[in-house]
Amino acid sequence: MATLVDTWFSSHAQRLERAVQACATREAWTPFIESPSGKLHPPGAKDAGLAWFQAALGGPFPLSMPGEVGRTGAEVSPYTRGPLRIDYPKVEVEPLMAAARAAMPAWRKTSVQDRVGVCLEILDRLAQDVFSNAFATMHTAGQGFMMSFAGSGANSLDRGLEGIAFAYKAMKDIPTEAVFERRFGGEPVRLRKRYRLMPRGVAIVISCGSYPAWNAYPALFANLATANPVVLKPHPECILPMARMVQIARDTLLEAGFDPNLVTLAADTRAEPITKQLLRHSQTAIIDYTGSQQFGAWIEANCNHADVYTETAGCNAVVVESADALEPVLDALAQSLCLFSAQMCTAAQNIFVPSDGVRVGETRVLPDAFAAGLVAAIDRMLADPKHAAGICGALQTDSIEAMLHKLGKHPGVVRASQPYDHPQYPRARTATPLVVRASAPDPVYQQEHFGPVGFVIEARDRDHALQQAAHDAGAFGSIANYAYSVDPDFREAIEDAFAENGSSVGINLLGQRPINFTAAFSDYHVTGLNPAGNACLTDLAFVTRRFRVVQSKTEETCPASTTS
Amino acid sequence: MATLVDTWFSSHAQRLERAVQACATREAWTPFIESPSGKLHPPGAKDAGLAWFQAALGGPFPLSMPGEVGRTGAEVSPYTRGPLRIDYPKVEVEPLMAAARAAMPAWRKTSVQDRVGVCLEILDRLAQDVFSNAFATMHTAGQGFMMSFAGSGANSLDRGLEGIAFAYKAMKDIPTEAVFERRFGGEPVRLRKRYRLMPRGVAIVISCGSYPAWNAYPALFANLATANPVVLKPHPECILPMARMVQIARDTLLEAGFDPNLVTLAADTRAEPITKQLLRHSQTAIIDYTGSQQFGAWIEANCNHADVYTETAGCNAVVVESADALEPVLDALAQSLCLFSAQMCTAAQNIFVPSDGVRVGETRVLPDAFAAGLVAAIDRMLADPKHAAGICGALQTDSIEAMLHKLGKHPGVVRASQPYDHPQYPRARTATPLVVRASAPDPVYQQEHFGPVGFVIEARDRDHALQQAAHDAGAFGSIANYAYSVDPDFREAIEDAFAENGSSVGINLLGQRPINFTAAFSDYHVTGLNPAGNACLTDLAFVTRRFRVVQSKTEETCPASTTS
Repeated sequence: MATLVDTWFSSHAQRLERAVQACATREAWTPFIESPSGKLHPPGAKDAGLAWFQAALGGPFPLSMPGEVGRTGAEVSPYTRGPLRIDYPKVEVEPLMAAARAAMPAWRKTSVQDRVGVCLEILDRLAQDVFSNAFATMHTAGQGFMMSFAGSGANSLDRGLEGIAFAYKAMKDIPTEAVFERRFGGEPVRLRKRYRLMPRGVAIVISCGSYPAWNAYPALFANLATANPVVLKPHPECILPMARMVQIARDTLLEAGFDPNLVTLAADTRAEPITKQLLRHSQTAIIDYTGSQQFGAWIEANCNHADVYTETAGCNAVVVESADALEPVLDALAQSLCLFSAQMCTAAQNIFVPSDGVRVGETRVLPDAFAAGLVAAIDRMLADPKHAAGICGALQTDSIEAMLHKLGKHPGVVRASQPYDHPQYPRARTATPLVVRASAPDPVYQQEHFGPVGFVIEARDRDHALQQAAHDAGAFGSIANYAYSVDPDFREAIEDAFAENGSSVGINLLGQRPINFTAAFSDYHVTGLNPAGNACLTDLAFVTRRFRVVQSKTEETCPASTTS
Repeated sequence: MATLVDTWFSSHAQRLERAVQACATREAWTPFIESPSGKLHPPGAKDAGLAWFQAALGGPFPLSMPGEVGRTGAEVSPYTRGPLRIDYPKVEVEPLMAAARAAMPAWRKTSVQDRVGVCLEILDRLAQDVFSNAFATMHTAGQGFMMSFAGSGANSLDRGLEGIAFAYKAMKDIPTEAVFERRFGGEPVRLRKRYRLMPRGVAIVISCGSYPAWNAYPALFANLATANPVVLKPHPECILPMARMVQIARDTLLEAGFDPNLVTLAADTRAEPITKQLLRHSQTAIIDYTGSQQFGAWIEANCNHADVYTETAGCNAVVVESADALEPVLDALAQSLCLFSAQMCTAAQNIFVPSDGVRVGETRVLPDAFAAGLVAAIDRMLADPKHAAGICGALQTDSIEAMLHKLGKHPGVVRASQPYDHPQYPRARTATPLVVRASAPDPVYQQEHFGPVGFVIEARDRDHALQQAAHDAGAFGSIANYAYSVDPDFREAIEDAFAENGSSVGINLLGQRPINFTAAFSDYHVTGLNPAGNACLTDLAFVTRRFRVVQSKTEETCPASTTS
């Protein structure tokens, strides 16, 4: 079977090399297709994806797992509000962990090149399956079709490839062997040294409900490339896209003659969760988590038997100081509040404006007018229900609806959140953005409201706006902050202030739409310096601790020729 | 002052480049001098070092610290058994941490090149001060002069340089800026991105009592190069060499116009320890610890607010299966048991032999004869008190004497530990190796006995010897294991068995004397896969988490020429 794996590495070697290069130059690059246009895909690809999804509904998902004791699954489409009625293996943790662990020795003895070849092949098969993934993501996460195609497709595959590229680079930094020659007390000595890369153990990857692939792929592939078996624990309401991924990974491993239990699925329901049991297991060596800040903090505090990587969530700040024209700024912010109903870790939430107004040319737009302008921009953006459906998608869970209802009673509300009528799915769980006025600082905005919520926050002046925004971004967690200014000195101050608070910032993003867009190979996602997570997608630190080095050295008798 | 720092980087650039190269090839290399021979050092260098040490005795060490509230220090020379009567700043943690923290912003804004230049200059000044360090180490740690000169000199400087080299390489992997150009919805967009390296915060480096420089230098320099201020917390009985290092580092920083509080000393005594207060401080972001497994485990379990690196200790195994001649093997093992009274993390402890004997040519040496041979080899090695003094040095603490006394009552004792007469220091706290017979497995050897203790452990046969040795090395912690075999297949089995148990092994080390020797740039020290520590000196994982990346991206108006 080695021949097949050899083929895989060599057939994807150029892609890998190009990815490693892009990680260094940080330029714009992707080998994947962001557009679902029929011209760019094989004929019938979209229909085949849809057919796969429809066939999957209402039956057992074709996966069996070690430790399977029944079936589980209680997903509900955010669009139809009907249960998907798909069931998945229900597993017992102990035999599942044992099977994962048992798969490790042979996998770690496989060469780096072969392991990476398998990872690249899995990724390529996921890329060919991107329409299936899109429909699966749409009807579990609630993303609109375009986002589930591009964001959970090409953009997520990019993140996976980036994870493979960094893992490859880090492993290649350790030579497999060396010769060590020196004199000890006058005598020449020659040692042959071998350096073996060793996995840490079973890796638990917890994917989130709203954007499963984007964060799971880097962790999955970084772990697998470095020889750690992966147990994928999907969000109970977003299993299908991850089950599909696990299926493809297992088929690929099996085809190459490896133990498919290197990638397993541990599905559960809200009623019977198994996450903590997995995390606390003594064999759990690595944890990758995407989800709420609260549970992420619990993991960071309670799972120090494992190497923990978290990407949680934040209340991202925006500072609007000045602009040549306000409308493009308002449109950009409105889009960020609408896009996938702001169920993204990069969505804007807290928009700071100076009380003496945003400078626009010679005029100043005061906070009231600014808020009114933002509301108008949102209304404009969502006037056409078809357009609204495309941009907003659906709310992933009922709890977001409940949050909007509760926050909707705040006295500062300037735009109420209401459902929009989805033209295709009349029962879809939808909501337009809630906009609330506040003054800095106020605890109401100093926490994440996961969902379509924007605060227009009045600060004393531009310096106060910047300092408070940057402080809050650092203190309460942020992943992507934004700022608008035509003043080069103030832009410099923006960069400094966010950096000092351990937070990243995008400035004057107008042509880049959506502003939320974060590029693999170029953007370092999550700083690890504020409560929004401790791991960066992807840098060397994301991969270097996933394996260790064990060395052996053997003294060789020195031939005369080497003793001179 | 930038000019001075520029000079430093450029004057040491070649050394840095060569170090980075050696880290990749893992060859034998050092820019430092291992021999104290007068021919290799400036005239009078040794005398000057001794004069410095003698002048330091009995008075205040010329250091003052932020938060100083008095003086402290209760060191006793293991050679004279008399107090050194040197006092150091006694600090309050809060103002010390505040001062360290305050030094950070300007330091992090300094370029990578300049920070690394300062680190290289400090290292070079330490190299010039190597005789002072040798006397200081000898009379605190108890090392013999040769070891305190070479091991705590050149070999430790190598580890420091290796830490700088990896930190430099990891930081250089992040570009300072990039241009990102792509189309969003048909429109070309150009972003200028900046990537800033950010330190994590104040780093606490805890050095050990027996070998302070070897582990403290890598941590000190890796932290300082990545812009984290360092609070050095020395072992209460081994302050002087670290105080001298802190003094040199502070003088160098000051000379270059930087805040000397980037490197501070937090000395204490056993009676009034401040370690836990430092570790638990909310501003503590990084912890590097060398010392007992017990306290290392406490840190790993209780300090998850910080990034923790530990190098603790192990009960290193030896498997003796076969040899062309036994005497060289016994001499090598005897030396490992004698060298610095086995107060080294790489000293052999548990020597496994098959019950049917060690194959030596056509004969088999049974366990009793093997043990007798080892005892004879030790006796031979220590027959001359002057030689004994050079190799054994002194016991660092009374607790080691107490351990030897207690274990000396074990029924399996085949060689009692007794003091040897130090020719120069009649009151020196000395001990020759205790050798104990045991059978595998036995809890008595499955723990570290820090000091001159060797167990000759009988196993059923060679496979049992190997399996038990490798298992125990992994389960109870080991840093450097050893094996002797003339059978190539068995050597392969040795490498596999120790690797499977997350432990490193040196095979047939005879010409490499001492076998304990671990080479910077070539040996990966500590696997992180067994209880002897979680950090490796030095790999990328040792440095990549000591800094984070904060990015900013600014959209630029696209000139027509770039939109095509």
